Amino acid sequence: MTARILDGRAVSAAILDRVRREVAEFTGEHGRTPTLATVLVGDDPASHTYVRMKANRCAQVGMHSRRIELDAAIGTETLVGRIRELSADPDVDGILLQHPVPGHIDERAAFEAIDPAKDVDGVTRASFAMMAFDEGGFRSATPGGIMALLDAYDVPLPGRHAVVVGRSPILGRPVGMLLLARDATVTYCHSRTAGLADRVAEADVLVAAAGRPGLIRGEWIKPGAVVIDAGYAGNTGDVEYAAAAERASYITPVPGGVGPMTIATLLAQTIRAARDHQTRRVVSVP
Amino acid sequence: MTARILDGRAVSAAILDRVRREVAEFTGEHGRTPTLATVLVGDDPASHTYVRMKANRCAQVGMHSRRIELDAAIGTETLVGRIRELSADPDVDGILLQHPVPGHIDERAAFEAIDPAKDVDGVTRASFAMMAFDEGGFRSATPGGIMALLDAYDVPLPGRHAVVVGRSPILGRPVGMLLLARDATVTYCHSRTAGLADRVAEADVLVAAAGRPGLIRGEWIKPGAVVIDAGYAGNTGDVEYAAAAERASYITPVPGGVGPMTIATLLAQTIRAARDHQTRRVVSVP
Repeated sequence: MTARILDGRAVSAAILDRVRREVAEFTGEHGRTPTLATVLVGDDPASHTYVRMKANRCAQVGMHSRRIELDAAIGTETLVGRIRELSADPDVDGILLQHPVPGHIDERAAFEAIDPAKDVDGVTRASFAMMAFDEGGFRSATPGGIMALLDAYDVPLPGRHAVVVGRSPILGRPVGMLLLARDATVTYCHSRTAGLADRVAEADVLVAAAGRPGLIRGEWIKPGAVVIDAGYAGNTGDVEYAAAAERASYITPVPGGVGPMTIATLLAQTIRAARDHQTRRVVSVP
Repeated sequence: MTARILDGRAVSAAILDRVRREVAEFTGEHGRTPTLATVLVGDDPASHTYVRMKANRCAQVGMHSRRIELDAAIGTETLVGRIRELSADPDVDGILLQHPVPGHIDERAAFEAIDPAKDVDGVTRASFAMMAFDEGGFRSATPGGIMALLDAYDVPLPGRHAVVVGRSPILGRPVGMLLLARDATVTYCHSRTAGLADRVAEADVLVAAAGRPGLIRGEWIKPGAVVIDAGYAGNTGDVEYAAAAERASYITPVPGGVGPMTIATLLAQTIRAARDHQTRRVVSVP
């Protein structure tokens, strides 16, 4: 068997087309343009690149992005204050705090300064719990993108065994909760897991999100499994691609799989936030 | 092999002894008594019994309990308003909303009206996320009790495979997150799981929380496993006790296992809330 490709580039392009139409419609109807505020702290070149990519994508779909760049030396209080201003700003629909932030800053405190109604990157406690309880809040961008990719290919989830390798608060943990909400049986593995090969071999759906290149050997993959590699690190994923593709039924390439879905999810959630936001503005000014 | 008993009555009695000493110390030092507000909506006899048991336990450890009983016919807004008052009341340290509430009420909205600093029953989204992210908030009472029971018997967790059967927002989901935070490999099973027997057979630690008497057959239990039965329904658990006890290394009886740990956790969290609350009172009135 050779796996079919889960083509994140094609699926995300279709999502971005839809978002572009929705943005044009929104702007025409309400006389203002949906706006994503991006907050970047410090000089990390990779973070700068990511923020620039997101701003470019905003421009491509007709959204505004407002870039806030802050000195690496600022403290938690300054960052929290700045994010609270954005949360209160009626011209801002969504807020993205590029992470990781420098180590001396309390990242959790900064995340929690984001109004959950503007948490289009799905990083707050409220968003996490809404994902876990299937309450329809904003999803963490990469987990939301993974679910959209699975749905685009009609991958069945109820009753199937999904194995998530990795447990970060914005990737492994939330994607497991989203899979559980869709009635999959869900196993979380991580660096302390004993017998990782045996756990992976049981996966009908595997989500590799460890960020350790080549951690998942192709020979571990159950024949016919669906393999999602979210372990991007310098164009290499967590999964031995060629060997895994011989056994899997579907597999994401790296790059071109999960990555493009992340930004598409971010922007799809931003136009949704703008609409919800507009409704609240209208309701509060009757 | 015959399993050792995980004696929830004995462990909870020790916790309540400690709480009693802490309450006396707190009352002596601050001139006020820690207070748990219990909110009960409607006439369900079982709910009345649970609230009475909790009030009795409060009295036994020297805490105040303030019972609020509301008519079954009230709406969500009234309940939310009443809980918000308790959240703002400086004489209230902890709030327990007895659930389930009548079906016409939005239970989630009622839970979210509880100030997370007073959420000693661990039902808010914020508490769930803090459990999931290992951030030290209040635990859902039964999951917190299960973890305390495992710790009382020094059950090792890192790298071991914990299987949770059940995924309710206040039991299955949070106990899985707490086990994951303690470095267990965690599998969530539920009513849609295919091959439940195979999943259960892999458990080094099994938490049965389905509320379906006898669902877990004794012969499924891996020899030497630790079995936690949280599936209380009329003195019967989810696990076939006698057959499971022949294979397990440790097992909770029903009743006398998880049940008493739940109330002990609630009261231990209430004295902790009172202390934190007192600290905030002092800080805000310098």
